[in-house]
Amino acid sequence: MQNKLFVIGMGPGDAQLVAPRALAALEASTDLVAYGLYLDLLGGVCDGKTHHQLPLGEEIARARLALDLAAQGKATALVSSGDIGIYAMATLVFELLDQQLQGKENHPEWLDVEIEVIPGISAMQAAASRVGAMLGHDFCTISLSDLLTPWETIEKRLHSAGTGDFVVSFYNPVSKKRNWQLNTARDILLQYRPAETPVVLGRQLTRDDESIRIIRLDELDAKDVDMFTLVSVGNSESRHIVNGSREWVYTPRGYKKKLL
Amino acid sequence: MQNKLFVIGMGPGDAQLVAPRALAALEASTDLVAYGLYLDLLGGVCDGKTHHQLPLGEEIARARLALDLAAQGKATALVSSGDIGIYAMATLVFELLDQQLQGKENHPEWLDVEIEVIPGISAMQAAASRVGAMLGHDFCTISLSDLLTPWETIEKRLHSAGTGDFVVSFYNPVSKKRNWQLNTARDILLQYRPAETPVVLGRQLTRDDESIRIIRLDELDAKDVDMFTLVSVGNSESRHIVNGSREWVYTPRGYKKKLL
Repeated sequence: MQNKLFVIGMGPGDAQLVAPRALAALEASTDLVAYGLYLDLLGGVCDGKTHHQLPLGEEIARARLALDLAAQGKATALVSSGDIGIYAMATLVFELLDQQLQGKENHPEWLDVEIEVIPGISAMQAAASRVGAMLGHDFCTISLSDLLTPWETIEKRLHSAGTGDFVVSFYNPVSKKRNWQLNTARDILLQYRPAETPVVLGRQLTRDDESIRIIRLDELDAKDVDMFTLVSVGNSESRHIVNGSREWVYTPRGYKKKLL
Repeated sequence: MQNKLFVIGMGPGDAQLVAPRALAALEASTDLVAYGLYLDLLGGVCDGKTHHQLPLGEEIARARLALDLAAQGKATALVSSGDIGIYAMATLVFELLDQQLQGKENHPEWLDVEIEVIPGISAMQAAASRVGAMLGHDFCTISLSDLLTPWETIEKRLHSAGTGDFVVSFYNPVSKKRNWQLNTARDILLQYRPAETPVVLGRQLTRDDESIRIIRLDELDAKDVDMFTLVSVGNSESRHIVNGSREWVYTPRGYKKKLL
């Protein structure tokens, strides 16, 4: 068999939301490259395999290691939660490959690795499903991390999300060192949509300690959000409805209002 | 057990990408409401259940029927391909529930139905994974159907996608009666990003007759696209790379260029 690298998204956390293809790829691998917490979610399927754990923040080293292991002939799985193609490790693998193709790396052996990317359910989808149908119409995602993207670019995107009236899901809303970005994002969106626009805060989605809150846009505050929280802001038509003890948020699929 | 309605996304087509929770919910149901083609993909798990097939276009009737069946005590599954929360049936269920809560419907029995939404992998994720990592940075989705959304709203969103430099995935890019919208969308995006921006055309993704083409934005033409095609347009940084017989598209996760 050709040298193989599986690049696998394991979904939001619940084992019942992991694609069979992702599990089969894990099973076919001898070497796993992942942040430790993701592997803990998977349980027995990882037993007996070599774990290569690098700390959070060492993303480039992880992508290199995965390519190196696969190039050495080890069936390798690079693993993340959510969809590994969305703000996650997959893009680094191809960025490294691109560097090699341009002659900026010295790892021709990487070019012989057969890569298979397996998508997973992303946090925004888990959040939307838990509260009903928040992503029922046009939406966008914005990472609020300005480590790799200049804040001016992020701010321009926030205004574009506002003018386009997209439902917005924020990835990396805060970190231990960053907290002002989320409140600035809120203030920008408030220039374009009503204060009562529903916002969903989904923490540890689909896991045992899941918590979900539905608030108004003008109540959104970075102090209520941590690294494990997905923040989704409705568009100007999104509705928060209450049926007894159950609350839902949905975004209608049309703007013509004569649907029903 | 309380009257139960499962609202289930079955993913892009490949049975290996269906979440175990989705299959379990199908198995627990006696009545299935779906467009016939989706059920064909599932095979044996649907045997012995009552199929309620309504034609495409009868979306509201399907959502009503699903709520009615569940309210009658039948364990019911409302099923679509992809993620049922993204441009699909889930939002109609909650829109009907909302109408009832507002007294505009006369179906109080709907309010006693316990609803569980199960997300699935959407077409844009399948396309991105097949070509590498197209959704590696901020992205948006836009439906080009102007049946329910005025074209002016869609056009505004296209400009916002342009100013924000989002990767853009088009849902409902064309239909039998609509074809000019996609070319107009292309021309709008060309005002904001280079002619050589990579575009992925993914048809029947993850299915036996899957076909994937990678073209330039200025080559995008509605005549090459049908209802079964997902169209994703890169942002200004997205890269199309060729490694021997393999082609990839990825979107770098940052704009600072000093990543590697």
